[in-house]
Amino acid sequence: MESKVKFFAAALAFMLFAAQVPPKTLIAQQQSEWEAKFHAIPSPDSMRAYMKRLSARPHHLGSVYGKSNAEWMLHKFRSWGLDAQIESYDVLFPTPKERVVELIEPVSFRAKLMEPAVAGDPTSGQHDEQLPPYNGYSADGDVTAQLVYVNYGIPEDYEQLASMGISVEGKIVIARYGASWRGIKPKLAAEHGAIGCLIYSDPRDDGYHQGDVFPQGPWRPKDGVQRGSVMDMPLYPGDPLTPGVGATANAKRLDRKDVKTITKIPVLPISYADAQPLLTALTGPVAPAHWRGALPITYHVGPGPAKVHLKVIANWDIKPIYNVIARIKGSEYPDQWVIRGNHHDAWVNGAQDPISGMVALMEEARAFAELYKQGWRPKRTMLFCAWDAEEQGLIGSTEWAETHAEELKSNAALYINTDSNGRGFLFAAGSHSLESFASGVTKDINDPQTDLSVYARSKLRQIHSAGSAQTRAELRSRPDLRLSALGSGSDYTAFLDHLGIASVHFGFGGMDGGGIYHSAYDDFYWYIKFADTDFVYGRALSQVAGTAAMRFAEADLLPYNFNNFAETVSNYLDELEDLSQNIRRDIIEKNRQIDEGVYSAIADPREKTVLPEKETVPPYLSFAPLANASEQLTNSAKRYQQAAENWKKSGKNLPGKINEMLLQAEQKLTVAEGLPGRSWFKHQIYAPGFYTGYGVKTLPAVREAIEQKEWDSVEGHVHAIAGVLNGFAAHLDKISTMLEK
Amino acid sequence: MESKVKFFAAALAFMLFAAQVPPKTLIAQQQSEWEAKFHAIPSPDSMRAYMKRLSARPHHLGSVYGKSNAEWMLHKFRSWGLDAQIESYDVLFPTPKERVVELIEPVSFRAKLMEPAVAGDPTSGQHDEQLPPYNGYSADGDVTAQLVYVNYGIPEDYEQLASMGISVEGKIVIARYGASWRGIKPKLAAEHGAIGCLIYSDPRDDGYHQGDVFPQGPWRPKDGVQRGSVMDMPLYPGDPLTPGVGATANAKRLDRKDVKTITKIPVLPISYADAQPLLTALTGPVAPAHWRGALPITYHVGPGPAKVHLKVIANWDIKPIYNVIARIKGSEYPDQWVIRGNHHDAWVNGAQDPISGMVALMEEARAFAELYKQGWRPKRTMLFCAWDAEEQGLIGSTEWAETHAEELKSNAALYINTDSNGRGFLFAAGSHSLESFASGVTKDINDPQTDLSVYARSKLRQIHSAGSAQTRAELRSRPDLRLSALGSGSDYTAFLDHLGIASVHFGFGGMDGGGIYHSAYDDFYWYIKFADTDFVYGRALSQVAGTAAMRFAEADLLPYNFNNFAETVSNYLDELEDLSQNIRRDIIEKNRQIDEGVYSAIADPREKTVLPEKETVPPYLSFAPLANASEQLTNSAKRYQQAAENWKKSGKNLPGKINEMLLQAEQKLTVAEGLPGRSWFKHQIYAPGFYTGYGVKTLPAVREAIEQKEWDSVEGHVHAIAGVLNGFAAHLDKISTMLEK
Repeated sequence: MESKVKFFAAALAFMLFAAQVPPKTLIAQQQSEWEAKFHAIPSPDSMRAYMKRLSARPHHLGSVYGKSNAEWMLHKFRSWGLDAQIESYDVLFPTPKERVVELIEPVSFRAKLMEPAVAGDPTSGQHDEQLPPYNGYSADGDVTAQLVYVNYGIPEDYEQLASMGISVEGKIVIARYGASWRGIKPKLAAEHGAIGCLIYSDPRDDGYHQGDVFPQGPWRPKDGVQRGSVMDMPLYPGDPLTPGVGATANAKRLDRKDVKTITKIPVLPISYADAQPLLTALTGPVAPAHWRGALPITYHVGPGPAKVHLKVIANWDIKPIYNVIARIKGSEYPDQWVIRGNHHDAWVNGAQDPISGMVALMEEARAFAELYKQGWRPKRTMLFCAWDAEEQGLIGSTEWAETHAEELKSNAALYINTDSNGRGFLFAAGSHSLESFASGVTKDINDPQTDLSVYARSKLRQIHSAGSAQTRAELRSRPDLRLSALGSGSDYTAFLDHLGIASVHFGFGGMDGGGIYHSAYDDFYWYIKFADTDFVYGRALSQVAGTAAMRFAEADLLPYNFNNFAETVSNYLDELEDLSQNIRRDIIEKNRQIDEGVYSAIADPREKTVLPEKETVPPYLSFAPLANASEQLTNSAKRYQQAAENWKKSGKNLPGKINEMLLQAEQKLTVAEGLPGRSWFKHQIYAPGFYTGYGVKTLPAVREAIEQKEWDSVEGHVHAIAGVLNGFAAHLDKISTMLEK
Repeated sequence: MESKVKFFAAALAFMLFAAQVPPKTLIAQQQSEWEAKFHAIPSPDSMRAYMKRLSARPHHLGSVYGKSNAEWMLHKFRSWGLDAQIESYDVLFPTPKERVVELIEPVSFRAKLMEPAVAGDPTSGQHDEQLPPYNGYSADGDVTAQLVYVNYGIPEDYEQLASMGISVEGKIVIARYGASWRGIKPKLAAEHGAIGCLIYSDPRDDGYHQGDVFPQGPWRPKDGVQRGSVMDMPLYPGDPLTPGVGATANAKRLDRKDVKTITKIPVLPISYADAQPLLTALTGPVAPAHWRGALPITYHVGPGPAKVHLKVIANWDIKPIYNVIARIKGSEYPDQWVIRGNHHDAWVNGAQDPISGMVALMEEARAFAELYKQGWRPKRTMLFCAWDAEEQGLIGSTEWAETHAEELKSNAALYINTDSNGRGFLFAAGSHSLESFASGVTKDINDPQTDLSVYARSKLRQIHSAGSAQTRAELRSRPDLRLSALGSGSDYTAFLDHLGIASVHFGFGGMDGGGIYHSAYDDFYWYIKFADTDFVYGRALSQVAGTAAMRFAEADLLPYNFNNFAETVSNYLDELEDLSQNIRRDIIEKNRQIDEGVYSAIADPREKTVLPEKETVPPYLSFAPLANASEQLTNSAKRYQQAAENWKKSGKNLPGKINEMLLQAEQKLTVAEGLPGRSWFKHQIYAPGFYTGYGVKTLPAVREAIEQKEWDSVEGHVHAIAGVLNGFAAHLDKISTMLEK
């Protein structure tokens, strides 16, 4: 196929030249006209109608309505003329059989563990179809013990507890939601010896302290509960029984007892109405100031006298899941894929999460189908994916990516993800080779509430919230937005972290609050009252994600820009050097203060205090291999971008398999053996933190070794990542050499 | 008298020399022995007994028990052999006749406005003798209007309201206690057009959010109210009818209608139990995040629909007040005075405020009386003052200082103040010419809870809480503690700010919380349960303040150190230059962001927002006169300290009236016309902030002109203060010249 394409391209170039029209300009103009047509199609009214249908009943993994939604979307895609299929997998899915949380000392109280219907909200009372509040992939257990309040239950909270002489060994901990992905809380609690874990939503974080509660306002009412998976996704996401391979009918499955991503201790989420009696029954030290929430009580840490009985027993079923995949075949490069995805399953009715993003994707698919009818042909194949079972552990996308791993590694040029959407400012994150490209897209989409482009509004907001004059100066001079790095928490994970496919995630938000996340109140009634009520940000999301897909599908030369990537890596290197220096300096200072007697001087003899112990001062570490690799990367990126620029001006045909090589560049950032202790995560630049969950760790092997003070291993990781970056640079050089010919 | 002293000193020196004992060393040794004897005398048991007596019944200005306390102390002082008198004044003192706070829309609620008795607390039910909760020197008024929540009611809060398009014109504001002295709240509210003001104690600031509430813990219970004066003390403190002169029987008095320190609008303080229904009835925008307290509600700003009726009518009586003044006459320099003061009046029973400080002063007086019996004679006259009517506006100390102004300006070498005391770390503030001296004292007093000196514990704590490596380095290398500058809030004000007498304030605290400030629950029961329960910090306070008094009374050369003062002034100058540069930079940046469209880009069209307007960029300002004066001051201070050092080594008699000149040095920092707009405040280096109340403003004329953006006046003030500092330096030079002879 390659030679044919070349011939046509040469012929076209000749014809255009003969007609005295600069060929690139004409193509750009045609593309721009198609883009304008595309922008006009996504319709807020359609999105509203889709949301009403898709969120009308609970549609979680394994539910009747979830399957119905998949079939309805399949039908929609096909009705628009797209080639669409459902791809199904069978995955492990625990649902509650027994749930008990009761205070048995010093007073009795039994937690309600349910979300009542709200007057006026027509879907909030569908209790028969709702999954009750629980945490998926909690271990089964029946435990009784004293309670300890552990704030957010993140590593620094356990350091604080240690300094107060409080152990959670043999206790049940109660942590509040926030500051980390929820699965970190039972993981760390178990590592510290706890035998059970409760997670509650404090009104300070998303309840009345933030604003009026549902149904008067968008925030979490007293009985609202955040469901959610506690599967150890930083180890590997997807079906727990089939790590690394698709959960197809005949896949080899682990025995459940051998699964490492199920929690070690039982966990349940509770509302603040259920949490208040438990927290009130704690005595012991008053919680540190930044641990205190907004309940009208004095927050104590415990342990006890509150004694809690926690029982969690699940039905551990294998359930079918349904990904809906629609395609538009590429006219010139059918084996180069641009993939667009959003999940369709929810914890309950899920109007915002995920339907607000899903309806944008649907309108993109409809729009491209419409353009197709008008004669538009994307050069590359476009896929529109509605993932199932994201909520349980990114399962639908992960199983699909694992199943199609080899095709994807050969073909996938870009994965574009969306999920929940709202009103306000663009949030964009992704591979930094896409930063310049993504910025370019946002410059051409209008913000619905202002006369600014999405890019300009985002940039102006960043200027306003910048912490320093230096940051503002950079924002003002830099022609691109900065993409955040991707951690985890949505369906890009398997594409980026496991397969090394350049990925980007888009979403709007930041202007409307909300405390209905993963509750029964995240529904159509809530969304049209408090969120993107007229769906204009749904349309903007379609326009951003769709334009990105379209441009990638259309480009002669795939529009990666490696200068941005090289600059970002160089910044990460600076961060790591600073981080290691700061930790070193902090240890020296702490040891000095111990010698000076500072800690015993400030200790209150009326309180229990464990004085810190001196720590070995870490060695100076050499980041030189990374610095050298970073410089090489910078040079190779610059050379490539220059070569690409020159080629564009030249009017020459694209030599060899340049695009095929380009789309595999991101894979050069992966290694087969993966990250230390978690081989599923292959990418060496981006990963979710092992102790943050959603939060990204860039250059993760090095960064986590520093953060966890594993000094002996840092330089080995530095060396390994330097090798990865050198390989990446060499790959770019190869492409540049071909382009420069 | 001067020549006699010289003769005896010379004779003594000769005798000592003849005995082959270095004279200074012997004197130092004798002093040290007397100090050791002094340190052993103050007794926790006595302090506890005094506190029990003094706080047994409410003892506010004008109360039967307040007079009884004064007479009891007079008797005590005399019983120890001291020369003691009561000095009385007649002052304006409003007490409540009518108090009403009621919500009349959208629902009815009448505030309780009283503090119930607490079971187990024997004095909390003395309602017949208690002043009910109210704010002294509130204007009388009867107003009804919509309510607006204004956070702390400080200037930046009104800027925030303006940006939200909310005016308090014609409204009643509700502000929470904290972040400023309370009197600022009605003052600013009235300046912004409000017609009434409520001040409540949010549980976030000193209630259950901080810890267990009384009687389970030390924090403010739901019905606890903070009384307090709202007299405009930053204008002038003391009796409102007699500014600048003592409120003696025949003093010329202002007509009450001409008094400027009574508020313009009625004000009442309320509990959080009384505040919650009012705040709950507000709608309008949700309060900004940092405005929200710990009540279990969504904090809205209003205005309304809450409509409030506020009525405050007082009995405006003239009442007698009773200062108790005890003396030990100086053996060598009876006309050089060391003054030690603490107030004895309280809002209610006032165990912590002020009795915890008062009992320390009493034990100092008893200890010196005891030493006197043993043969010790202070060279200078020592005064022990128990002030009345501090709570209403520093009235007792102010009227006394105004009455004795001329004597004090001739004679007073030092004023040492204390007030509330507690458990923990030393807080020391004062004239920076006393910094080195005060540090030296704290090096010789043991902290009761550790094996450290008070100095060392304080220093180690500062090292621990230092914000930067630079601050830590300075703390480690600097041989002195840093004294905070004095603002206002206790009885040093008239001495330092009005008369220019070098002053220092000491107190311990920081380890025990408390929410009983100015409530009926600040009583003996509370204090012995939650504060310095065994009075060991009472003893430490006696030792610190008494040692300071003793050393000053004993010194041959008054131990001021002007190097510290010069260094501090130089730091203040740096602060002012930075402040003016930062304001300038912020205005330029804000203007730039307005031009860029930042504010309209970030505005939420669903919310009312008033976009900021461009501001004139202030001129560059010359601080050169101050810089030159600061350098001159540094040189003159250095010269003086060297001359003093040389003189000490020389064994020579002190020539001329060196000490008389030294003790008047601080007065060289005052000017007769006072600060702009508030002529009572004479000191040009320290003053309470016009819009902070307690919070100090150093180099106040310049600093407040910059903060209030009165650019045209800054350089005039710079010039004036430079002149003051040059005069001060010249005074030092004169002393140095005499010493160097």
